[in-house]
Amino acid sequence: MERLRILVTNDDGIQASGLVISLVRELSSLADVFVAAPDRERSATGHAITMHQPLRASLVELPPAVTAYSISGTPADCVKLAVDKLYAGQIDFVVSGINHGANLGSDVLYSGTVSAALEAVMLGLPAVAFSLAAPFEAASRPCFQWAAETAAHLMKLILVNPWPEDTLLNVNIPGGTRELLGVRVTSLGQMRYKNPIEQREDPWGNTYFWLGGQFDESVNPEVTDVWAVQNGYVSVTPLQFDLTNYRLMDEIAAWELKLPSREEKHDHE
Amino acid sequence: MERLRILVTNDDGIQASGLVISLVRELSSLADVFVAAPDRERSATGHAITMHQPLRASLVELPPAVTAYSISGTPADCVKLAVDKLYAGQIDFVVSGINHGANLGSDVLYSGTVSAALEAVMLGLPAVAFSLAAPFEAASRPCFQWAAETAAHLMKLILVNPWPEDTLLNVNIPGGTRELLGVRVTSLGQMRYKNPIEQREDPWGNTYFWLGGQFDESVNPEVTDVWAVQNGYVSVTPLQFDLTNYRLMDEIAAWELKLPSREEKHDHE
Repeated sequence: MERLRILVTNDDGIQASGLVISLVRELSSLADVFVAAPDRERSATGHAITMHQPLRASLVELPPAVTAYSISGTPADCVKLAVDKLYAGQIDFVVSGINHGANLGSDVLYSGTVSAALEAVMLGLPAVAFSLAAPFEAASRPCFQWAAETAAHLMKLILVNPWPEDTLLNVNIPGGTRELLGVRVTSLGQMRYKNPIEQREDPWGNTYFWLGGQFDESVNPEVTDVWAVQNGYVSVTPLQFDLTNYRLMDEIAAWELKLPSREEKHDHE
Repeated sequence: MERLRILVTNDDGIQASGLVISLVRELSSLADVFVAAPDRERSATGHAITMHQPLRASLVELPPAVTAYSISGTPADCVKLAVDKLYAGQIDFVVSGINHGANLGSDVLYSGTVSAALEAVMLGLPAVAFSLAAPFEAASRPCFQWAAETAAHLMKLILVNPWPEDTLLNVNIPGGTRELLGVRVTSLGQMRYKNPIEQREDPWGNTYFWLGGQFDESVNPEVTDVWAVQNGYVSVTPLQFDLTNYRLMDEIAAWELKLPSREEKHDHE
């Protein structure tokens, strides 16, 4: 039987320890691993793609002796380029991560890590996004190594199942020293921030702003990813890329939206 | 009764004719209009936000004498900054657009225009994204003026209805000289591209790549936005920001994903 071929990407850049040192080595025991990742940190890029500049791809050396490209684009660019060109016809599965920090709740829309996995699904491939939900100072190399082992273990269990079409799994692994309680299948929760924008003055008296804020410990029910990670569980959320709110289609249709009538209409011909 | 207060933003930048010349003036007949838009073109930025640089906002003069900020960030940044800081407590509704080009099907995830509206919904506000689904050469100023009139007409009809929670409407208006046939409430279709990546060589013999490709006229059923716009209808799609695939939660739970047992587990403490 042929070995599975996994593309590994991330949004922290190809030099990020989570990707290079740990995840690639652990996954190599399960599959042939190919890497295509951004040449620098691309966090919070959401599902950006690069339309107005050409992309470059350079082969780089990675410790576990896998083929790896460093790419001058976003995580979504990396997946497009790798699947359609650099490793054309060679990729069966895409793994994105391990991200340095959680990707939970409504925040997943900002996440380059999750967007890389969404892009894979849009190209017809199964995909998993892994994030280490630890405060930055705690996500040291040993913690990444441990998270990579946990990720590889979960991948082994995941891969025996038939993959549901048009789906990715968003996996968040709580970091730190706390004993994990298990794995929960969750829905996306809510990430609300207090004081989301900080206003400052530069030395010349001009105002500028930082996006940020403190996570609002708002009520997230037990079914959510936010609750699961806060309470010591690995969270696994099935995600889709179709944003259509099907429930509302009939309701909106009943609004009877119409074009301006002929008399009101401006002639544009 | 107090007038409605609408924030207008876009991803083509504050100088884009679709925004400045046409939409703001047309909406001013319905509501008090406030503007916060990127200082330059920010297409295909997806839901990127600016975490690693401060944001600047400058007041600029817009023809219809509305307050307008030019912001050094993405469309999602503009909405965050406008709603939480620049116009704090003053915004009832967000309108994003009119985008220069369609935002249909799976492509909405790449769209700065749609992401600005999604950001509004995440902040608890109702929002509509408008796009002029015309080839670029056809989207001349008169066409934008006509599209802005159509958008304002639709807004008037939309605003008499109670707004469904956590929802935005993604509206695509076909451009060109063709007579429009009406308005359809649609689901997101599929945007597939032929030859999505073009490989070239620079004058020094190095390879580079362009993302692009030609739209694949694949089968999009009549219920989709892609079909509607191709066939002369204005398309209105209700979108949500929750990507959870709820249908699959039980199926994935049945996979019985488990953590490594104590013996397999690497000590990370």
